[in-house]
Amino acid sequence: MPQLLPQALLTVIDELGKLPGVGARTAERYAYHLLRANDASNRKLAQAVTQLHTGVKSCPKTFALIDASESVSPLYSNPSRERKLVAVVEEPLDIIALERTGQFNGTYHVLGGAISPIDGVGPEQLHIPELLHRIKDDEVEEIIIATNASVEGESTALFLQRQIEQHGLSVKMSRLARGLPVGVDLEYADQITLSHALEGRRLL
Amino acid sequence: MPQLLPQALLTVIDELGKLPGVGARTAERYAYHLLRANDASNRKLAQAVTQLHTGVKSCPKTFALIDASESVSPLYSNPSRERKLVAVVEEPLDIIALERTGQFNGTYHVLGGAISPIDGVGPEQLHIPELLHRIKDDEVEEIIIATNASVEGESTALFLQRQIEQHGLSVKMSRLARGLPVGVDLEYADQITLSHALEGRRLL
Repeated sequence: MPQLLPQALLTVIDELGKLPGVGARTAERYAYHLLRANDASNRKLAQAVTQLHTGVKSCPKTFALIDASESVSPLYSNPSRERKLVAVVEEPLDIIALERTGQFNGTYHVLGGAISPIDGVGPEQLHIPELLHRIKDDEVEEIIIATNASVEGESTALFLQRQIEQHGLSVKMSRLARGLPVGVDLEYADQITLSHALEGRRLL
Repeated sequence: MPQLLPQALLTVIDELGKLPGVGARTAERYAYHLLRANDASNRKLAQAVTQLHTGVKSCPKTFALIDASESVSPLYSNPSRERKLVAVVEEPLDIIALERTGQFNGTYHVLGGAISPIDGVGPEQLHIPELLHRIKDDEVEEIIIATNASVEGESTALFLQRQIEQHGLSVKMSRLARGLPVGVDLEYADQITLSHALEGRRLL
């Protein structure tokens, strides 16, 4: 059978197919879109991808993603942010989700993942020692453990809690509340979520 | 509010967000994946996108996508393909769908879209005159109109049929069958599909 598509198009399909959750059909659709886009816009995409690594670095204090030109995350350096309150998250993008609530005025600490033996991620790969340092240096009073509501997120939260206790650091620790998300019918809620919602019920 | 993400990352999110069906969240996920990918693999993606336009051209006979180095589509030049049988499709990727069936041994003709007044696509933008020429030049005996099963696809098929008749070309014309797709329960089929399935029922 002859090759059905030009090699240049197949290469783009192949490369786009490496993006998370992108199958062959989706990659084809993206590639075809790029084929019909003008040259200038494709060059912009190519340039953006090429300059991604040089333009981004990790904040040495919070491990948030920052501009290569910055020395520390603006969410940490900003004097109006409360350094004694730290939200610990798994990934840099989790910060955006929390910032979007507009409800949090503390600083962040990115662990860089969650403990997951299956994926070969152990506690030594996470930015836990740096967090323990920060707790002392910044005289942190409260830690909100905002890891994901997954098995890995839970294990990481537990491990972190023990580490902080073992280091004799007296700091208030909390976990994000678990319960029914907004707009969900009780009928369709899974039983674990519902158990959490019952357990964490609030007096009126 | 300070910028929550480094500019280089925002630019990539922005550019990826222009792909069809990609919203802000998906673009963020893609960009974060690229951020964690190594430099060489990102360069490959960037290069593939940059070289897309120069590596691909349109076949002057069938308007299929071909390598810039080819003069005509291999699906047309191949002597084992029947030139007297032409499947007319809207877009180049439709060819792949038909080729995957392994059931078609004719040649293709890509219209380059479908008639859609809303999107400002009139018949004059489609490769219809070229098809009429091909019918004469290649002494085409049968045309399978394989446009989409949408309103636009139907209008285009009707328009094409009339054009061929008006030009006094005697050629057998057919449309792809419409009915129940494989694996669909009667219960869940929409009524239009079901009407088509009834109308096109086959004697056993």
